[in-house]
Amino acid sequence: MSSHRKRTVLVAGGSGFIGSHLCDRFLKEGYRILCLDNLQTGRTDNTAHLVNEPDFQFIQADIAEPIRINQKIDYVLNFASPASPVDFDPLSIEIMRAGAWGTYHLLELALRQNAVFMQASTSEVYGDPLVSPQPESYWGNVNPIGRRSVYDEAKRYAEALTMAFRRKYGIETRILRIFNTYGPRMRPDDGRAIPNFINQALKGDDITIHGDGSQTRSLCYVDDEVEGVYRLLMSNETEPVNIGNPDTEVTILKLAETIVRIAGSKSRLTFIENPHSDDPKRRCPDIARARKLLGWEPRVSLQEGLRHTVDYFSKLMRSTTEKPN
Amino acid sequence: MSSHRKRTVLVAGGSGFIGSHLCDRFLKEGYRILCLDNLQTGRTDNTAHLVNEPDFQFIQADIAEPIRINQKIDYVLNFASPASPVDFDPLSIEIMRAGAWGTYHLLELALRQNAVFMQASTSEVYGDPLVSPQPESYWGNVNPIGRRSVYDEAKRYAEALTMAFRRKYGIETRILRIFNTYGPRMRPDDGRAIPNFINQALKGDDITIHGDGSQTRSLCYVDDEVEGVYRLLMSNETEPVNIGNPDTEVTILKLAETIVRIAGSKSRLTFIENPHSDDPKRRCPDIARARKLLGWEPRVSLQEGLRHTVDYFSKLMRSTTEKPN
Repeated sequence: MSSHRKRTVLVAGGSGFIGSHLCDRFLKEGYRILCLDNLQTGRTDNTAHLVNEPDFQFIQADIAEPIRINQKIDYVLNFASPASPVDFDPLSIEIMRAGAWGTYHLLELALRQNAVFMQASTSEVYGDPLVSPQPESYWGNVNPIGRRSVYDEAKRYAEALTMAFRRKYGIETRILRIFNTYGPRMRPDDGRAIPNFINQALKGDDITIHGDGSQTRSLCYVDDEVEGVYRLLMSNETEPVNIGNPDTEVTILKLAETIVRIAGSKSRLTFIENPHSDDPKRRCPDIARARKLLGWEPRVSLQEGLRHTVDYFSKLMRSTTEKPN
Repeated sequence: MSSHRKRTVLVAGGSGFIGSHLCDRFLKEGYRILCLDNLQTGRTDNTAHLVNEPDFQFIQADIAEPIRINQKIDYVLNFASPASPVDFDPLSIEIMRAGAWGTYHLLELALRQNAVFMQASTSEVYGDPLVSPQPESYWGNVNPIGRRSVYDEAKRYAEALTMAFRRKYGIETRILRIFNTYGPRMRPDDGRAIPNFINQALKGDDITIHGDGSQTRSLCYVDDEVEGVYRLLMSNETEPVNIGNPDTEVTILKLAETIVRIAGSKSRLTFIENPHSDDPKRRCPDIARARKLLGWEPRVSLQEGLRHTVDYFSKLMRSTTEKPN
């Protein structure tokens, strides 16, 4: 192997929200990128700016099917799965297959290639937590038969499978637990509070708040998240690490008000019944391990992050309006 | 469809401990049996007495691979998975594949055949429970990355997948959570307390108790377990139901003493370090739902059940001694 060969990162789910930012980041760090996506919830728009990069290659493929790659890969990053609560019912089986079949095929690939494997796990493995903030040692409170279980249990399964491959075959693995992350390239129809509120604010529609708005979220800006992913991958930490922002805990009500203000919108806040009765009331990462092991912590304030995100959706809306079809 | 056609039950894992008793029971009730097993931990000895039954058919197959069956099936029972803690390390990947691939293939089969599907789940979904006894509404306390997680998370995943198929395709499903069960046809090398103690007692070897023997088990005799399975399958209960014995909670020490007495053995009790530090300290079923919905409760006392089990291992040992090869 030539020491001058560029190392290659396979990003499964590379056309998704976080995956596409990872493509950007690893290109910038001098890696070749294999972006794998079945485009079920990922969008080619997210990587449209990369198609002419010589070190960027897109492959449309579903990780739930066996993966054949005839080039050397150094890192396998599994960021492929529908992840929005609006997907949990219509894509229930696909989500479960991504978690088991998909993770298995990517682990097999990493094993064959002697590559480092990273599993994107989630704060959803903690379910509706009984302790807050959640350290990685917390085993969670997940309803195995509830409507969210297709995602939560698939991700817990994927963690267990990752550890099983590591124990059995000695492959190098990383497990990242992603907490609520936001920023440009979130799906506008993602159903989550931030894209919902921003789109309503930009259109001047009423902002629809589920319940009384007292439920809180801790929100991590995507650049911070990606920095955490990068540092974890380059570390040798095999146990799970939380990457999220514990300092931005905000009520949904306050979040809506902030977005309306940043967007300079005249939208009014309205309150509707909460259709997702099993939404976790509260989730907040304990990031002591990330701080200690990776020297990582989030840097982008909620104000700044929301400004970038509002800008993104505002541009997206203008370009959609200009090209109605 | 002729009303005289015998209905067919596919028992996946039908050569295993509980599976083989299910074959017996459903034959006795007038069903045809398709016994499916990959014989990884199941043993043909367990169904050797059935091979000449016209309504019994054995198919060696691995549910982790797609299943082709060209006959009408009315019930699909998924009792196929290595289940002993001694299997968790060497068969880690196989266990995880049985839970996801296996359950998926059997659900697909049930869907195609418009059959009733039953998932054999386990008290392991409760992990190291923080409440005792455990009702079905308890969400569990499972370490997703521990050595037991290959089994626990695979079974939780299988429950979630079963519910996803039911919600998406409307197939009829049952989920059974099996607590510690014992009786004839347990694997002698199963690593669990009862076969260990009985074999040591019958040979006159020292009985090796892990730890101080104060940990407890609630033990259900296999005939009682099978009665619960039968009643649950014939019910229309789609939510999980615990089937286990809450009335026999016994310390491991007391269990060893009882077995030595029943076997008329001179074995002495010895205490060794507990190699399984993540063994649950205590597990005991809340069977209020089984009582109410199925009119079921266990009937066989620990004394009586252990007597049958000692008899079985005693005969097995004699036949092995007579035929050394």
